[in-house]
Amino acid sequence: MGPLPSYVSGEWRAPSGQGAPLLDAVTGEQVATVSSSGLDLGAALEYGRSVGGPALRELTFHQRAGLLKALASHLREHRDELYELSARTGATLGDSKFDVDGGIGVLFAYSSKARRELPNDTVYVEGDVETLAKLGTFVGQHIATPLRGVAVQINAFNFPVWGPLEKFAPAFVAGVPTLVKPASQTAYLTHRLVELVVGSELLPPGSLQLVCGGAGDLLDHLTEQDLVSFTGSAATAQRLRAHPSIVRNSVRFNAEADSLNCSVLGPDATPGTAEFDLYVKQLVTEMTVKAGQKCTAIRRALVPSALIGDVAEAVSDRLASVTVGNPGSDGVRMGALASLEQREEVRRSLKALLDAGSVVFGDPEHVDVVDADPRRGAFISPVLLRADDPGRAEPHEVEAFGPVSTLVPYGSTEEAVRLAARGSGSLAGSIVTADADFARDVVLGVAPWHGRLLVLDADDAAESTGHGSPLPALVHGGPGRAGGGEEMGGIRGVLHHMQRTAVQASPRVLGAVTGRWVPGAPRSQGEHPFRKPLSRLRVGDTVVAGPRAVTEEDIAHFAEFTGDTFYAHTDEEQATANPLFGGIVAHGYLVVSFAAGLFVDPAPGPVLANYGLENLRFLTPVKPGDELTVTLTAKQIVPRENADYGEVRWDTDVTNQRGESVAKYDVLTLVRKEAR
Amino acid sequence: MGPLPSYVSGEWRAPSGQGAPLLDAVTGEQVATVSSSGLDLGAALEYGRSVGGPALRELTFHQRAGLLKALASHLREHRDELYELSARTGATLGDSKFDVDGGIGVLFAYSSKARRELPNDTVYVEGDVETLAKLGTFVGQHIATPLRGVAVQINAFNFPVWGPLEKFAPAFVAGVPTLVKPASQTAYLTHRLVELVVGSELLPPGSLQLVCGGAGDLLDHLTEQDLVSFTGSAATAQRLRAHPSIVRNSVRFNAEADSLNCSVLGPDATPGTAEFDLYVKQLVTEMTVKAGQKCTAIRRALVPSALIGDVAEAVSDRLASVTVGNPGSDGVRMGALASLEQREEVRRSLKALLDAGSVVFGDPEHVDVVDADPRRGAFISPVLLRADDPGRAEPHEVEAFGPVSTLVPYGSTEEAVRLAARGSGSLAGSIVTADADFARDVVLGVAPWHGRLLVLDADDAAESTGHGSPLPALVHGGPGRAGGGEEMGGIRGVLHHMQRTAVQASPRVLGAVTGRWVPGAPRSQGEHPFRKPLSRLRVGDTVVAGPRAVTEEDIAHFAEFTGDTFYAHTDEEQATANPLFGGIVAHGYLVVSFAAGLFVDPAPGPVLANYGLENLRFLTPVKPGDELTVTLTAKQIVPRENADYGEVRWDTDVTNQRGESVAKYDVLTLVRKEAR
Repeated sequence: MGPLPSYVSGEWRAPSGQGAPLLDAVTGEQVATVSSSGLDLGAALEYGRSVGGPALRELTFHQRAGLLKALASHLREHRDELYELSARTGATLGDSKFDVDGGIGVLFAYSSKARRELPNDTVYVEGDVETLAKLGTFVGQHIATPLRGVAVQINAFNFPVWGPLEKFAPAFVAGVPTLVKPASQTAYLTHRLVELVVGSELLPPGSLQLVCGGAGDLLDHLTEQDLVSFTGSAATAQRLRAHPSIVRNSVRFNAEADSLNCSVLGPDATPGTAEFDLYVKQLVTEMTVKAGQKCTAIRRALVPSALIGDVAEAVSDRLASVTVGNPGSDGVRMGALASLEQREEVRRSLKALLDAGSVVFGDPEHVDVVDADPRRGAFISPVLLRADDPGRAEPHEVEAFGPVSTLVPYGSTEEAVRLAARGSGSLAGSIVTADADFARDVVLGVAPWHGRLLVLDADDAAESTGHGSPLPALVHGGPGRAGGGEEMGGIRGVLHHMQRTAVQASPRVLGAVTGRWVPGAPRSQGEHPFRKPLSRLRVGDTVVAGPRAVTEEDIAHFAEFTGDTFYAHTDEEQATANPLFGGIVAHGYLVVSFAAGLFVDPAPGPVLANYGLENLRFLTPVKPGDELTVTLTAKQIVPRENADYGEVRWDTDVTNQRGESVAKYDVLTLVRKEAR
Repeated sequence: MGPLPSYVSGEWRAPSGQGAPLLDAVTGEQVATVSSSGLDLGAALEYGRSVGGPALRELTFHQRAGLLKALASHLREHRDELYELSARTGATLGDSKFDVDGGIGVLFAYSSKARRELPNDTVYVEGDVETLAKLGTFVGQHIATPLRGVAVQINAFNFPVWGPLEKFAPAFVAGVPTLVKPASQTAYLTHRLVELVVGSELLPPGSLQLVCGGAGDLLDHLTEQDLVSFTGSAATAQRLRAHPSIVRNSVRFNAEADSLNCSVLGPDATPGTAEFDLYVKQLVTEMTVKAGQKCTAIRRALVPSALIGDVAEAVSDRLASVTVGNPGSDGVRMGALASLEQREEVRRSLKALLDAGSVVFGDPEHVDVVDADPRRGAFISPVLLRADDPGRAEPHEVEAFGPVSTLVPYGSTEEAVRLAARGSGSLAGSIVTADADFARDVVLGVAPWHGRLLVLDADDAAESTGHGSPLPALVHGGPGRAGGGEEMGGIRGVLHHMQRTAVQASPRVLGAVTGRWVPGAPRSQGEHPFRKPLSRLRVGDTVVAGPRAVTEEDIAHFAEFTGDTFYAHTDEEQATANPLFGGIVAHGYLVVSFAAGLFVDPAPGPVLANYGLENLRFLTPVKPGDELTVTLTAKQIVPRENADYGEVRWDTDVTNQRGESVAKYDVLTLVRKEAR
């Protein structure tokens, strides 16, 4: 295979030169060559901005989510091809699934999150309406709109499929086009992934571009509307963060760098406990999956001093059974590093670590391999170290990006927290304990240094996804050494690609901007809004109904009928003593029930069901003799894609004869799009 | 007055040298001198981390909020002193109130927001519990914990009181100590502010430090737990953003830079309309308040081509009546710039702007002043320019940081949006129009370039706080040229000072970490939890009650009693036709009423009231004959400061005879701290 083409400005383009060879991690054979020379990267960015962005912004969040799901299904059908190519990166089938299925899973997860948590709209409204002045004529609210640039995604070599997809999914949902620049070493796999995406013809033009090879002058063309998400080494992250274009334009720069993640064993987890076994098993898994080439892998195993010998022994026993070799061969548990250069890098780091520790298991210079030539493939033995002095800098600062971990002893909980913090910022940490108090102390102690923390115990072990697995619903990233960024985290990752803007206006105009009815905006009365299908219903459509008196008998009857005989509804003397009521009051449930009796239009029509209620607050006690009026106003209308109905949220205000609000809430209904 | 002392490491310290003179902006007299030489800034940061942080973290959000309120009251009592000193910066009394009262207002606002929107706890829990696996034994949630470093705040000269306070308030609420470094020119006013704060003895030691003079080696001592918030010029922001310590440690760096903010006049707002007058008046205000030395001031007045002559004339008329001079003198509407250097800077920028425009009003080189010596005071005339060619770069790129604005004509809405975007990122923009559609088009068009947008019209004018006023509840900051940062924005500003961490665990352990009951965690049954005051109530305390059958008669009776005769409850044939129900179903309100009848403990006790309901979802239809059981579990307990009760949130799950949940919601109650 010759030079990998890039997919830019709407077409596949070969570089002008031959480029650098990319070698099979197992056999050393050439897989492809890579170069970006001759590509006009400024034009690619402009293509994304002028073609991709507008096409994406035509779609609603739900429509983008629908495309993401279709894309995920398409890729799932082709995953065997990806596994096959993935093996050439040194990955076992298990490693490949982690990468490929993990990436596809992120697409599915974002598709589902977007439909559940975002409106079927192009604008995101964040937070409540803020009252900015007394009379309510001046209000504010935050909106988020897609940045008008390109999400430039610079990925690491270790996850050539998951890496691009986990960054692409939230950008796409946000309505921002992506340009992926994979790390060269495994770019042939990302290239194949993008071929599959492009071949699916599912996505709007310009929504995904690919640059194989060096970044060239790519960053020089950034504007304040672009953003950069980087995964890779801390050193490269620093270089990019200070790039003049990024600094000059305040470009949103998100870095996710490998870090010296720790796993803490609780003092309760002595040999023989479930947690001891879980700790050992997890450590071995984290050392050997992807041959330890994971930003989240455990580099520092913090164990109680008294248990360090037991842990060393148990981990060594397990490591001894890990077969290293050709990832395609039967019984092989660990494949190769991504390249011989990576192996040299790991050996260099190991040398530094050995200044402060000793080898417990493995030989950095030698490993027995199955079905492969150890001189041509980038194989290395798992290596377990033990830090003799936990206070030394090396275990906390030197990362060997391979199947390498260091056992570090600790004395007290405080010391465990202090040692964990010496990583100066980590992507992930874990605590293995059955002791909830110990878990709480360590989690709250080390949280400021972590993006994600896992507490593993017998309760969650069967379902746990493990220390090293970022999940779409949770933030992925960490402070300091880990890059200071945040990826995914559900809708947070979508909002990262959007500009948050505070809008201040009159209720009428704010409502026009957000597409929602805002308290204080005009209401429109006429035909009962329950008679209107979505095609005719408008935000602001209102019914006012009542008054209805609440009698002493109503309250007594409701108490008896429902069984809710709370003294405030039944015992005048005691109710008078209640500091909030000063006498018998109606049940809140009676008030909302009577309100429904007032606003409901009973005959069959477009309203299918009341499926819920939000933000109910009882604001003023209702006393016998009070008269209730209810004002119900269509506040938000969300038609569903692929259904003949949608959701309508109604602002509900129940007032008494003095005009005071006694209860406010949102009624949630399902309403047909068209009359039948 | 000699060199300003700094307040570091718990005491007032004078610099080792005399330092640079700071001159009165009006008279040119020396006010003080300033220098940070001889101060150990690394030790100051370490003092903040080791003394201020731990002291703050001892307090809950509500306790910090209480201190903030007390501090605000204390400062309010001393504001006259601050006004007096403020006049020496060139500020009129109105300008001083904007700065001083504005700053105190931020403290009050954060105090109130924190008590309403944060728990009375030390950990913030963000978002829902995420189900991470099928059986529910493995769940996740995000927490936010205070960073363990110092919030380093580098402020601009134009708001010596508001600037430090608007940054301090969210940091303090978050539990992060502050070190303020004011701009030297007006540091004497910030120094007095900090003297008042320190003198109040209200704050824990180490929570606020002050460095007068240069930043020296301050930033060299930053760690990954510190953060930097900068307000000032775009050029300085770029320099700081690329500082090696900031880059190396991924230090959270927030910049708020002056920007070329625009105000758009709608085509509907012709002379004679309220909006035309509002536009003209606001433009003059923005030009002259603080002599135009506001990061948010209007630099570009975008007006329909057809109206530019009218606007020029009306603005000139108003500017002609603005008296410039000694801010302490009667009738003076505009004071001096902060220094003669600032005036030179403004004149330099004006020269560049004049390459692309012409003067409509004012003379950059001359102004008549009242009660002051124009050679010694930094006075300048308001200058209104008109861009002859709106496409030229200068009006969109050159900022004169004084009483200077440029009229820029536009043809279409699209052109207005395009021109607005040429500011490459702004803090604030405004649209003055009565046309909600025009407002919507411009707001959504320019939002990606703006942190805040105001729509001004006859409806909100009386209550509007105006184009240039950041508000504590709304984000302050903007993309690109404006620095790319965000300050305030209510609780967002607090969270900016905290690390977000995803916690994965079993429900039991997650609950132990967050202090809340998590579905799936153990429940504790025994004494009815409504009998327990807060002193005895524990998260997880549960009552299970029922079953109670729902009969056909119950449904018919409830329909008749409440008036809610919706066909799904009353008409078998029509209810059967409903795609969701397939037959008569009980009212949702009946279900929650019966549930209350089951879980309520009627006798007087510590539970004072049910004040609301959240997140109610009806999950399964309840049919005649179904039997309801309710499980009520204490989920979150929030004792109030300064009250003998608190809030308890109860997880409520109503199930049928098959164990299916028919309704889930949170019941909100007020409960006494102690039994009476």
